[in-house]
Amino acid sequence: MPDTNNQFNLPVDELPRKWYNIAPDLPEPLPPPKDPPEGPSRVDMLPKFILKNCLGQEMSTDRWIDIPTGIRELFIQAGRPRPLMRALRLEKALKLPKTIRLYYKREDLSPTGSHKVNTALAQTYYAVKEGYSEVVTETGAGQWGSALSYAAALNDLKCRVFWTRAAYRWKPGRRTLMQLFGSDVFASPSKETKFGRELLKQNPQHVGSLGIAISEGIEDALNRDGSIYCLGSVLNHVLTHQTIIGLETIEQFKLADDEPTLLTGCFGGGSNLGGFVIPFAGEVLRKKRECSFLASQSEAAPNLVRGKYMYDHGDHAGLTPLLKMYSMGHDAELPEIWAEGIRYSSAAPLMSALRHHGLLDAVAYPVDEVHVFTQTRRFVQTEGFIPAPESSYGVCAAIDKALEFKQKGEEAVIGFNVSGHGFLDMQGFAKPLNLEW
Amino acid sequence: MPDTNNQFNLPVDELPRKWYNIAPDLPEPLPPPKDPPEGPSRVDMLPKFILKNCLGQEMSTDRWIDIPTGIRELFIQAGRPRPLMRALRLEKALKLPKTIRLYYKREDLSPTGSHKVNTALAQTYYAVKEGYSEVVTETGAGQWGSALSYAAALNDLKCRVFWTRAAYRWKPGRRTLMQLFGSDVFASPSKETKFGRELLKQNPQHVGSLGIAISEGIEDALNRDGSIYCLGSVLNHVLTHQTIIGLETIEQFKLADDEPTLLTGCFGGGSNLGGFVIPFAGEVLRKKRECSFLASQSEAAPNLVRGKYMYDHGDHAGLTPLLKMYSMGHDAELPEIWAEGIRYSSAAPLMSALRHHGLLDAVAYPVDEVHVFTQTRRFVQTEGFIPAPESSYGVCAAIDKALEFKQKGEEAVIGFNVSGHGFLDMQGFAKPLNLEW
Repeated sequence: MPDTNNQFNLPVDELPRKWYNIAPDLPEPLPPPKDPPEGPSRVDMLPKFILKNCLGQEMSTDRWIDIPTGIRELFIQAGRPRPLMRALRLEKALKLPKTIRLYYKREDLSPTGSHKVNTALAQTYYAVKEGYSEVVTETGAGQWGSALSYAAALNDLKCRVFWTRAAYRWKPGRRTLMQLFGSDVFASPSKETKFGRELLKQNPQHVGSLGIAISEGIEDALNRDGSIYCLGSVLNHVLTHQTIIGLETIEQFKLADDEPTLLTGCFGGGSNLGGFVIPFAGEVLRKKRECSFLASQSEAAPNLVRGKYMYDHGDHAGLTPLLKMYSMGHDAELPEIWAEGIRYSSAAPLMSALRHHGLLDAVAYPVDEVHVFTQTRRFVQTEGFIPAPESSYGVCAAIDKALEFKQKGEEAVIGFNVSGHGFLDMQGFAKPLNLEW
Repeated sequence: MPDTNNQFNLPVDELPRKWYNIAPDLPEPLPPPKDPPEGPSRVDMLPKFILKNCLGQEMSTDRWIDIPTGIRELFIQAGRPRPLMRALRLEKALKLPKTIRLYYKREDLSPTGSHKVNTALAQTYYAVKEGYSEVVTETGAGQWGSALSYAAALNDLKCRVFWTRAAYRWKPGRRTLMQLFGSDVFASPSKETKFGRELLKQNPQHVGSLGIAISEGIEDALNRDGSIYCLGSVLNHVLTHQTIIGLETIEQFKLADDEPTLLTGCFGGGSNLGGFVIPFAGEVLRKKRECSFLASQSEAAPNLVRGKYMYDHGDHAGLTPLLKMYSMGHDAELPEIWAEGIRYSSAAPLMSALRHHGLLDAVAYPVDEVHVFTQTRRFVQTEGFIPAPESSYGVCAAIDKALEFKQKGEEAVIGFNVSGHGFLDMQGFAKPLNLEW
């Protein structure tokens, strides 16, 4: 065994058996979903497009939620537990003293290339248990659509994905991936829904938007027998499913005989950073550890940095109930970036609550993404793995903070989550780094 | 722990400490390299473009070759040991009886997406030890260029890759990957070499060939201070480096308490299947086990199926010594397929010897690739991982053989190697499966 052990692996049989729900440990109860003053009740509609088991978890005040054996088997099939690695080579390249140490969690080893698989497997498992034969969703960057397609295939469910036409055209590799799994993938607006057909009548070349794709997905699922809509971020149950990441990481830091002082990761809607840090934040709230948390965002969607803590819709069209979130406004115009997956108007209610109670810091990087991808390249050339454009924001924040601590002469143990790989999105690196494409 | 254990992981500290060299266990000594009747001696040139350590391994008759600690650390950094998985979900979908079991090795977890990383890390490590500051190579499909770029970055070496212009244009994602690692990537023929400039003078739009790229790489390395050429397949030392795959797999079958009766994988030049099966074949030769081996090829390059066992050059231009190989002829015209990485004229001397001595069977699939990718899709939809187009040939052969044994009512334990992932080559699946692109 080389004496530079940099890999901390949990045995398969130590995969956590319960998810952690932070709701009961928050300083105040989480503000509940609300209806807007006008229009039909969105709250009453929730059971029509959230699985019964997931809605139960959404409202649960139990601290620990059993992970069914069937879901644990799916997690294992998908390669969990995933390694935690000490970034010894990156530390050396950054000339860090031994008092500043870097660790990263490898969600990039996910079968479809992102952490989204964790909740996709849980939701499709429950869909089968609740008697559905088909799942429907929308996707923007394509990570969620890929993850749900994968999970549907493993659970013998049909899957329909409404994908904003702009990205559908731009990412043929990701489209082929979803189709290989057997999904029907539609450029949105599509002819599959009444809403889509109306938009196409007005403009046959309509490039679509995430809001439109959500509306199509919900309409489609409501009108098809045996079909249920699935959501990939923001909601409490999604973040709870993702806590498998942080729960593994807690055990792995024990194996490393080290304690993180700062955890960071990219942040759009919040399911990545939430899954990674919520179990640690719970221990902070229960006075079992000290640790800081940092959300790494883009100035394209700096909801935690410049947003307001207010009741807002989760979608552009205002179909969801109002949730108490840090938000840019649900109909805000957000500039395009390569890290499309973190370009989202609002921060998940649970993460917004942590921010509100002073447990979560946030930083936002310029929309040109040059600094983010330049720092990420140092990780790529030393550690050798290719983060997704989105995950690069977490890598960059970790490097920036490490260098800041070094300059100040402070000690730090920094953990970051590589939430996905970049193989299907290499174009994102080429343009900002001025590489040929 | 679910009772359906399908994952067999070696602990990091059980990563093998020696490579296996099959040369001394062959029924007859391996025929040595020879010079052609005309022109300068190619054999005498070998030390100019093969690293000293590698040339020693090339000619070695030692059964076991120590893996230096520095290379073991690099293997661990790259995620070794890699899992062996029982394909329980695929077995169920194929309705196999319990007497037919399928296992697969996950080289697709490699940082650049293929097994090529194993020899790339070894060669770059030796390059540093031998005082070089730069490695040069050619690449066709791009897997080898990506792997060497990665390994060069981790070893602080500069790297230059000559890439056939046709593929250079077609695979921008893979090009960005190599450039992210810091490599200089040239469309070949290029202006970097005398040979390239001459060809471009004749035809400024020349699309190149693997033979031309090899010639450019060798000329380039010979003319640059501190530069050494590296090869990614065919040669004995490359296959020996790859035996890490099979050596891990032997231990993992022990963990699974099972014994393979047939091992298969895709086969072009032979480094993938060689690395996977040579340690098993050695045990067969030493009467320690019984097992069959099957090379899965394309009719585009069926060197083991329709080639002749003869002395031939390894490259199109005839710059290498003559090697005793099953070959289609070093200047054969090979039709294009999506699995570009297995489109190669000759089979590695070690694998050719196994074929010659009756230890290696071979099958070749039609050039339309429809059957191969259709069978692979069954693996994708059940096991959930995306093999490279090349690796799909191994997946397909395993499924075909399993169904054949089922029909005959015979027992079998089949292992196959998923030599790489397909994320950077999704277009390969789209066309033969008639998916949108």
